[in-house]
Amino acid sequence: MIHAAYGRIQPLVRHTPLLSSPFLDEIAGRKVLVKPECLQHTGSFKFRGAYSALSAMDEATRARGVIAFSSGNHAQGVALAAQILGTSSVIIMPADAPALKIDNTKALGAEVVLYDRATEDRDAIGARLGAARGLTLIKPFDEPLVIAGQASVGLELAAQCEVESAEVLVPCGGGGLTSGVALALSQARPGWRVRPVEPEGFDDATRSLQSGKREENTRRDGSICDAIITPSVGEITFPILQKHCAAGIVVSENEALKAMALAFKRLKIVVEPGGAVALAAALFHGRQLSDDTVIAVVSGGNVDEEMFIRALKTG
Amino acid sequence: MIHAAYGRIQPLVRHTPLLSSPFLDEIAGRKVLVKPECLQHTGSFKFRGAYSALSAMDEATRARGVIAFSSGNHAQGVALAAQILGTSSVIIMPADAPALKIDNTKALGAEVVLYDRATEDRDAIGARLGAARGLTLIKPFDEPLVIAGQASVGLELAAQCEVESAEVLVPCGGGGLTSGVALALSQARPGWRVRPVEPEGFDDATRSLQSGKREENTRRDGSICDAIITPSVGEITFPILQKHCAAGIVVSENEALKAMALAFKRLKIVVEPGGAVALAAALFHGRQLSDDTVIAVVSGGNVDEEMFIRALKTG
Repeated sequence: MIHAAYGRIQPLVRHTPLLSSPFLDEIAGRKVLVKPECLQHTGSFKFRGAYSALSAMDEATRARGVIAFSSGNHAQGVALAAQILGTSSVIIMPADAPALKIDNTKALGAEVVLYDRATEDRDAIGARLGAARGLTLIKPFDEPLVIAGQASVGLELAAQCEVESAEVLVPCGGGGLTSGVALALSQARPGWRVRPVEPEGFDDATRSLQSGKREENTRRDGSICDAIITPSVGEITFPILQKHCAAGIVVSENEALKAMALAFKRLKIVVEPGGAVALAAALFHGRQLSDDTVIAVVSGGNVDEEMFIRALKTG
Repeated sequence: MIHAAYGRIQPLVRHTPLLSSPFLDEIAGRKVLVKPECLQHTGSFKFRGAYSALSAMDEATRARGVIAFSSGNHAQGVALAAQILGTSSVIIMPADAPALKIDNTKALGAEVVLYDRATEDRDAIGARLGAARGLTLIKPFDEPLVIAGQASVGLELAAQCEVESAEVLVPCGGGGLTSGVALALSQARPGWRVRPVEPEGFDDATRSLQSGKREENTRRDGSICDAIITPSVGEITFPILQKHCAAGIVVSENEALKAMALAFKRLKIVVEPGGAVALAAALFHGRQLSDDTVIAVVSGGNVDEEMFIRALKTG
């Protein structure tokens, strides 16, 4: 399934390079390799999974259109995939989502339906629209075709780096990217260990791997790492994480901001806070790492000017 | 010579991807492709030429060490190439060069010799040191091996993009990158036109192509585009530009800053002012362009936080 997905998306995804800097190696005390998915179409890895799902649909179903819930990166990935495949997309977004992300999603051809988080039920809105128009729901992570698409990051990593042993750190929200990368690498690079990374206060994956059951976050918002804040990991992603991932790592928001500043200075890439947590773990949590090589996936770069300036001033 | 250089440097250079955004296409009114050499080792294309030159030296000569004059990007490229090839480098830098660039050059293993622009003669310092130690001078652009190394940007572009007709815009200082790209593409993509881009007040290449002789800039400093400020194009590069390039384009500093902000927002890359001039021409000088596809080379990303924040606030 992973290889079939890769076959579908390969002509369209951007094959992101593997970046490094001797200055980052020195901070980390080991070799640091960075997979910059901020350079992917729409500024995050989400296009991979979205295009995998939409390209696998039968034509008649796809022609009726798709629907997704998202405040940001998944929205843009689905909108672009629908645009490329010549179908329509409806994206249900919270009215308080960043204006830039709403504008981008519209500009990519999606019909954006805004709802009020406090007073409206987004699932009810989605169910009504979906049923009325025969739209297919594209889930952000708990969907095998989406996971198979994100797995292409793992396949590219295996082709780009030949070391026998490495730790691969992946920003983890619902676990779509982490589980996809872990599945791909379990076959392609059995000597590597994949580890989810989360921000403080939203460490559900880390705690779930410890307890053996899906734990929830008590807070639902209030993090600068908006891209990877989910109530819990998915029903489908969790067993994959259990089977194929090593322990999670939790970083502070301040560490994520410092990692953004170092990515600016040393790698010349723009990273959003949630996208920077794995790099932060690679740089600042060396005592939790054991391999000589650490690969950090940067999952996205959709950050506004104000937050980026804050990171530069923190770093 | 170009292909021989590519053979030497290919295992070591970073093969930078080709980036694009529908939002940039809309601004430009045509397809815009961006070659982000800011993602190259040391944050600029200069490593390509430096490694080409050093790797072509005979071992005994190389073992005595190399010397270069540079206030920034060439310095870091030579220092890294020397480090990789296990030899020593001496870099003569003005004492008022950006502290970050001096620190980076030192960190890459170079011996940095600072001089006072107002009171000291850098050529005399270089000649004395070079003679005493038997060092080989690595010129920044007017050197065939360096030009052949920069040409690898053109070879990569030809492999990455198959359109028959395109304009390729290249930031132009001494003309090493522009002439290398033009030479490579004159064979690989005869239907493409390479055009140098410069900042206002430092348009020597553009005027030289008009007049048919090497024109000089009246000013020697005072531009934010420090990476591409040279008194004139080179003796070796100029005839190549004459033979293989179309007319130059001149952009304002404000346009360069706006291009930096758009590269941040739409491509998620960090670009320095001098590295942004070709992208600025692609976005804001459409009336001087004629092809449906424009390829802009981003030559570097070594910019400090303060200047980058200024660009974000301008854009």
